[in-house]
Order: sequence, then C-alpha cells, then structure tokens
Amino acid sequence: MKYYFERTFNSDFNTVVQRTKESLTAQGFGVLTEIDIREKLKEKLDVDFRKYLILGACNPAYAHKALLQEDKIGTMLPCNVIIHEIDNNQIEVAAIDPIASMMAIENPNLHNIAIEIQTKLKTVINSITL
Amino acid sequence: MKYYFERTFNSDFNTVVQRTKESLTAQGFGVLTEIDIREKLKEKLDVDFRKYLILGACNPAYAHKALLQEDKIGTMLPCNVIIHEIDNNQIEVAAIDPIASMMAIENPNLHNIAIEIQTKLKTVINSITL
Repeated sequence: MKYYFERTFNSDFNTVVQRTKESLTAQGFGVLTEIDIREKLKEKLDVDFRKYLILGACNPAYAHKALLQEDKIGTMLPCNVIIHEIDNNQIEVAAIDPIASMMAIENPNLHNIAIEIQTKLKTVINSITL
Repeated sequence: MKYYFERTFNSDFNTVVQRTKESLTAQGFGVLTEIDIREKLKEKLDVDFRKYLILGACNPAYAHKALLQEDKIGTMLPCNVIIHEIDNNQIEVAAIDPIASMMAIENPNLHNIAIEIQTKLKTVINSITL
C-alpha cells in the first residue's frame, strides 16, 4: 500500500523547502519540527547522505480533534512532509498518508478525521508552485 | 491492533519525562524533537488540555539503515514517545510500535529493521525506573 503523496520538482533544494512551507501554511499547517537528516547523520555517524529534511506539520484544530478521539494518537503526530534531493536539482516532496500510517488503529471517529487531514495534505502537495 | 507500548506511573510529570529521556539515551536514542501539546493548543486554539509531551526519538544507526532500505521512511521518523497526565500524578508513557505504524509498507528489509527498533522501544518503556 502506498503510504505517501509525492511530487518531484526540477529546482534547487532550498526553493522547494520554502514553497512547501508556504503551501503548508496556506492549508493551516504549522511546522512544529524540522529535522535535517543529512546534518544529523554526519554529526552522529560521520556518514554522507543526500539533502533530506523532515518537516513535522500540524494543523492545531485537527490535532485537537484527533487527540480527543484517540488519547495516544500523539505517537503518530505531527504529520511529516519530507523534502529530499533524489538527483542534482531533482527534488522530491512527499507527505505521509495518515490513512496508511494510522491503519492499525481501529477507531471510526479517528478515521473520519484522518480522511480530512489526508485531503488537506494532498492539497498541500498539489498546490506547491515554483 | 495495538499500536503502542505503555506504562503508567504514580509520580509527577517532570520526573517521568526526565526518567523517560534517560531510558531513551540508555538504548541509543537521541531526542530530536519535543512538542508540548498543552502549550501549543493553548497558544493556537486557546483551549485547555492536560499535560502532554511528544518526544521524537531517533537511533541514528537504525534511522540510517531504514533510510537506505526505504527512501521515504522519513515520513514516519522519528519514533514518538508520548508522556501525558491521565489523572493527578498518574502519568502514562507510550512509545509507538513501529511494526504497527509501518504496516502499510511492503518492504521485508524494512520490516526486519522495524522489529529491532520495536525491541529497543519496548526496552525503553520497560526500563524506566522512578
């Protein structure tokens, strides 16, 4: 099962990061966390890795609704959007599909919220413009 | 399907947070992110919520192995451990079960890594001492 929504852009990494953040903001997501995987792997393991950023995106109203329905859903929050360089100036952006990541959770009320967040994350990816 | 490993402690919130972080460190996990849900919900929605912290835990060597096997696994990293106050001085700690959250991903090589991380996260929860 596919567990993400993705698009690939011919552009430089930082521009795609900036446009992705703008698209998240437009859909009501704040970026709560930002992990630079390349930097972390260099620092901790001294290995070289491609440019790879993990943004932790959270729509507060939906997060609140989800927490009220499923008290330990924080183990799966925020929703991640990754941006990585798959080739020189080939930048892929991928957002988690919350329906896929939350499929183990049997809670119909949560499922309905996950569908709404799924729609918003699809729109985030589809709305990125360069 | 259960998607987390949990324990409940009779203690104060900050002590449990501290002991959880020590247990993560002992198993080779760094805490890359920390989200104070109560603070965020107050700030963004002006709602009152119980004490609820999301720690984003990452074992760099396992994260690297997982990324080499599954390039978009960053959509599910880091592994979260939540600490929340379910009642006065009743503090629950729960770690994500990566086998549950990654069940949509059909990749046997990733599955083997997820089993190893699952074992480590179970040990983190079982090793918390107050």
